[in-house]
Amino acid sequence: MVSPAAFSKTTRPEPLSQRDPMLPGALLPGPIAAFDVGGTSVRSGLVHPDGSITHRASVPTPRDERDPAGAVISYIAGAAADMPGALAIGVVVPGIVDAESGIGVVSANLGWKNAQFRDPLEQLTGLPVGFNHDVTAAAMAEARFGAARGKDTFVTVVIGTGIAAGLYVDGEPYLGNGYAGEIGHTVIDPMGPLCSCGARGCLEQIASAAAIARRYSARTGLEVDGARGVLEAVHAGDETAQEVWQEAITALAAGLRQLATSIAPQFIVIGGGLQQAGETLLGPLRREITKTFSFYPTPTLTLAECGQDAGLLGSALIGARAVTS
Amino acid sequence: MVSPAAFSKTTRPEPLSQRDPMLPGALLPGPIAAFDVGGTSVRSGLVHPDGSITHRASVPTPRDERDPAGAVISYIAGAAADMPGALAIGVVVPGIVDAESGIGVVSANLGWKNAQFRDPLEQLTGLPVGFNHDVTAAAMAEARFGAARGKDTFVTVVIGTGIAAGLYVDGEPYLGNGYAGEIGHTVIDPMGPLCSCGARGCLEQIASAAAIARRYSARTGLEVDGARGVLEAVHAGDETAQEVWQEAITALAAGLRQLATSIAPQFIVIGGGLQQAGETLLGPLRREITKTFSFYPTPTLTLAECGQDAGLLGSALIGARAVTS
Repeated sequence: MVSPAAFSKTTRPEPLSQRDPMLPGALLPGPIAAFDVGGTSVRSGLVHPDGSITHRASVPTPRDERDPAGAVISYIAGAAADMPGALAIGVVVPGIVDAESGIGVVSANLGWKNAQFRDPLEQLTGLPVGFNHDVTAAAMAEARFGAARGKDTFVTVVIGTGIAAGLYVDGEPYLGNGYAGEIGHTVIDPMGPLCSCGARGCLEQIASAAAIARRYSARTGLEVDGARGVLEAVHAGDETAQEVWQEAITALAAGLRQLATSIAPQFIVIGGGLQQAGETLLGPLRREITKTFSFYPTPTLTLAECGQDAGLLGSALIGARAVTS
Repeated sequence: MVSPAAFSKTTRPEPLSQRDPMLPGALLPGPIAAFDVGGTSVRSGLVHPDGSITHRASVPTPRDERDPAGAVISYIAGAAADMPGALAIGVVVPGIVDAESGIGVVSANLGWKNAQFRDPLEQLTGLPVGFNHDVTAAAMAEARFGAARGKDTFVTVVIGTGIAAGLYVDGEPYLGNGYAGEIGHTVIDPMGPLCSCGARGCLEQIASAAAIARRYSARTGLEVDGARGVLEAVHAGDETAQEVWQEAITALAAGLRQLATSIAPQFIVIGGGLQQAGETLLGPLRREITKTFSFYPTPTLTLAECGQDAGLLGSALIGARAVTS
């Protein structure tokens, strides 16, 4: 069992070239300024050809109600200017993404609609920009360096502020025009809490890291330091925390069952902030799945190996494609 | 709007060679004895190279609690012997199918578990046997001759005794080891009726043709001639029938939304017995989807074109593969 203290540990992966002996030489054509825009924070770093990361930063996601995409673009352009020698920029964002056009189609959490990211960033920085979905980036990182090496069909479920899945089918990300894998909006409880998407009882209203903290605070009136705080309370024997946690587990199992009824994944990688709960998450989730999957074969559940850097490493891979294309 | 009378109309497609001008010559290497085993009936016919079908038959699915697969195998072997000149046999069944091994893994409706179909049928008949999932067969038929011609990513939803979907991704059926597309077991209402799979509120407990008839009978105490009878009552202004029908529509829309949260299909073909309701099904379903899909693009919904013969035609395609392999 991973202790709650693990939440505050910054994991720095070994250089990728050491982790994947199959990798023929350098991973990247040069340093890539990589940005992973999340619902809560923007993580960034200069990712080097050996996979090491310098110039790390993490800031609260810039917000501007009138121009939510513009606020993020301005921040990235400024931060990229401070990363010397970057050949390109990789940017990954949540929500619905039209990767080919460089457009953030919609983000319920961050508020943009049909916002062009790639073109203004290229104009502001003079660098080629690769743009894609954060969860696709995480799945790419796991497929190339992480828990899903050697798997050609698998799902990476990222649980953070929201919940989404990156689907790999026969060795390729399956994007569904940018709409695939939005399992955070799978309806778990038709009578449940209203979601920003307009539906009721969406998975991410019950089981995202943000929802876990919100639901605990609502029931206890206590401020809590995110899902990490709830997990600490779980370990301290707080019954309300245990109840909220178990509801999240039950909802996640139901969400994975819904995924099973469509594409029946046999290998599922759990990433995002909540993965830091480790076996406190995976153990009960495995038991719940075994109970509820009825005739479906129980998929293998495993933790993401690229950790909090999955989005950043995937972002660098996506930025590198912009150099060569 | 298709009148209820359409339910009793036997549709016989034009010869396939006339329907698909792209088809290079004959579709099949010779006549194929094709069987489509359903939860209610076994449909069969001798499918000729030009796509015409002779020796049509439809019998109630043979049942034997002690040997549910054996009862079906015996029937097929006998019926195939009456089809002169068949080069091969195609058999498609519901449930979970291991096509490669010729095994019916499980059928909740028909009762078998890990039953070998192909080998005993080859021994009994001396003919090569192709074996696969009925819904995969329907999707293959629609992809090749029907509503999904020219589409490389689409879903065929077959609504009959049960509900299942055939997924096509980038021009190939996506089977998920035989478990993909079992959307009949998507949970719509966690407090809903118990399903044979062990879960509560599965889609097919609310919206399958069988469930529609069962739910109407349970509320009225009236015997009814299947979903057809309920549809007649809908048109006659029966409020209970309209209620049961609307609940089915709402559940189907919710099921398609669940599918959207995973693979976000943009093109959905509706087949199976219930498709005969035509616009009485599709009209309200489109409206419900428009209401509930929130940020997901509304997929195009269309009726299967191979009609009740989809499974049979797909079965013949699958039988033909056994000849050449």
